[in-house]
Amino acid sequence: MSWKENVRRVTPYTPGEQPKNTDVVKLNTNENPYPPAPAVAEALRDIADGYEILRKYPDPDSGLLTNALADYYDVDPDRIFVGVGSDDVLAMAFQTFFDSGKPVLFPDITYSFYRVWCELFRIPYSLIPLNDDFRIDPERFCIPNGGIVIANPNAPTSIALDTASIETIIRSNPESVVIVDEAYIDFGGSSMLPFVNKYDNLLIVQTFSKSRSMAGARIGMAFGQPELISCLKDVKFSFNSYTMSQDVQRTGAASLSDGEYFSETVLRIINTRNAAADRLKSFGFSCPESAANFLFVTHDRLPAKEIFEALRARNIFVRYFAQDRIDNYLRITVGTPEEMEKLYSALSDITK
Amino acid sequence: MSWKENVRRVTPYTPGEQPKNTDVVKLNTNENPYPPAPAVAEALRDIADGYEILRKYPDPDSGLLTNALADYYDVDPDRIFVGVGSDDVLAMAFQTFFDSGKPVLFPDITYSFYRVWCELFRIPYSLIPLNDDFRIDPERFCIPNGGIVIANPNAPTSIALDTASIETIIRSNPESVVIVDEAYIDFGGSSMLPFVNKYDNLLIVQTFSKSRSMAGARIGMAFGQPELISCLKDVKFSFNSYTMSQDVQRTGAASLSDGEYFSETVLRIINTRNAAADRLKSFGFSCPESAANFLFVTHDRLPAKEIFEALRARNIFVRYFAQDRIDNYLRITVGTPEEMEKLYSALSDITK
Repeated sequence: MSWKENVRRVTPYTPGEQPKNTDVVKLNTNENPYPPAPAVAEALRDIADGYEILRKYPDPDSGLLTNALADYYDVDPDRIFVGVGSDDVLAMAFQTFFDSGKPVLFPDITYSFYRVWCELFRIPYSLIPLNDDFRIDPERFCIPNGGIVIANPNAPTSIALDTASIETIIRSNPESVVIVDEAYIDFGGSSMLPFVNKYDNLLIVQTFSKSRSMAGARIGMAFGQPELISCLKDVKFSFNSYTMSQDVQRTGAASLSDGEYFSETVLRIINTRNAAADRLKSFGFSCPESAANFLFVTHDRLPAKEIFEALRARNIFVRYFAQDRIDNYLRITVGTPEEMEKLYSALSDITK
Repeated sequence: MSWKENVRRVTPYTPGEQPKNTDVVKLNTNENPYPPAPAVAEALRDIADGYEILRKYPDPDSGLLTNALADYYDVDPDRIFVGVGSDDVLAMAFQTFFDSGKPVLFPDITYSFYRVWCELFRIPYSLIPLNDDFRIDPERFCIPNGGIVIANPNAPTSIALDTASIETIIRSNPESVVIVDEAYIDFGGSSMLPFVNKYDNLLIVQTFSKSRSMAGARIGMAFGQPELISCLKDVKFSFNSYTMSQDVQRTGAASLSDGEYFSETVLRIINTRNAAADRLKSFGFSCPESAANFLFVTHDRLPAKEIFEALRARNIFVRYFAQDRIDNYLRITVGTPEEMEKLYSALSDITK
């Protein structure tokens, strides 16, 4: 008998590689290729000037960041919850809302962390197969369940689901909280945010990691009606009262202050993405229409794994999933036009 | 039937008040009255200069901060785990190591979050009464259990437990992980860190929030043998791969670089604390010998709640716990000598 018998055994999520070598083209973790808004650097200098304040605990309600989000999105502060990246927000939401013992539903091909959280928190789940074209069939989510999670746009497929279909799912499941994970929504698709006051069982989760270029800061948020947010806060306050550091709250708020920079960089990524889809076709790739900052591609001749390894050998990192149904696909993050040229050059060589 | 029936209902931890009014003497949350090391401000300026890096996810292993801790404490990096404050580290440790279904043991009077985590994670627990003088009796922890948590020095009692007693507890419980929560250890008492290689069931938890004046940054850490740390990381990676933001890792490492500032400010607090114990006696208070940055006081005549309210009316915040056995005590954080003079002046008036 040893302490080891009391240990919770889990199979953790495997994040994309973060190579220490800086001489790589890193198109494997859906990071934004552009820096955060310059106002973030200014905020950091302001924090340095008044660094004494770091001796104090942050506001448990993260009021500064919550209020900045409320202004930016024109949503009441009591409809907003913030956390240490959308992973933190989602983990809290799974613990809070999926406590029925009934299976939670999400697509068989989606963000793989959903399954990891269910296993960690011992939430039963059922995988709902995507259609053959990797689209979500809303009708399949209209069966008894303990909760629903839809990534929109979905990952790694890059495909957006229309709001009418999501409304169908929400309306058919008044007894369940429906989480819509909008990590990539700023690159395409339609946000459910306009419906936040309409449905009392809708929780929308977003992040600063993608469109706001702040993966390194760890900021995520959820929008929902006040009672949902209040339940989420109760669990969060049972976990860690002061999760959002003072500096991150301020850099997050600073990022929201520069709407022009945000729109401009998002548009650049969208343009690069659309050009990439065409260019990749010329090498024999095809992909669904992407509403995200990545492309989900398959080649008409070469196995995805082979291309993945050939790119890696050239110091170009993309994401390959050794998973049923998608093991002949690659997820390629949209980088700068310069990075994409390096990718095209390598692929032209690999596929010739 | 509604989504509300699927919600996890919890009674969250109540943190000490964080008054928005800055014109208060805030001695209620055990914050450090001195700023972080000046190197922290420099680190923030460096981060501002290279803020572009925030677009990238942080190193999931928080290597920069882990290595800085390894150097500072002369402990192998694979014996170190870091998290978003010691609350995050403790919450992960509870989930990881207390999975047996047997009750976890901790004192009836201790950090009240232990009970909240057990309830959140559905871990059974038994409260082990402190002696009448609020000391921990190690023998009482030598009964069948699913894990043990000892805060040393304990809070809110401020009393340290000797390492020999803690070793007794560790040796008597080879089948349990023993967590020693050393949030206040730098202000007194003896750390179990020298024993980290000796016992395979010992996990030591510390924080940057108290002695390092960085409550606003949210940094906590655990030390233990590599297998313990590895189990903890598996659960953490199942929860949130990238919890430590890039900027916080760097400000934390910067704080460790200035050992002289650290020793000097800790010593100032110890001196102020010892002087405060004497001074408070002159007003009719008594308290156990404190090994922390706070005093746990009771008055020979006036009820604690009355003093708490009278201080609050004078904009001096201390902590009162409406809890069995300690509802005639106050926990008073050690502030600057100037803040303490304001406290003495008020108490002289209140107790006259």
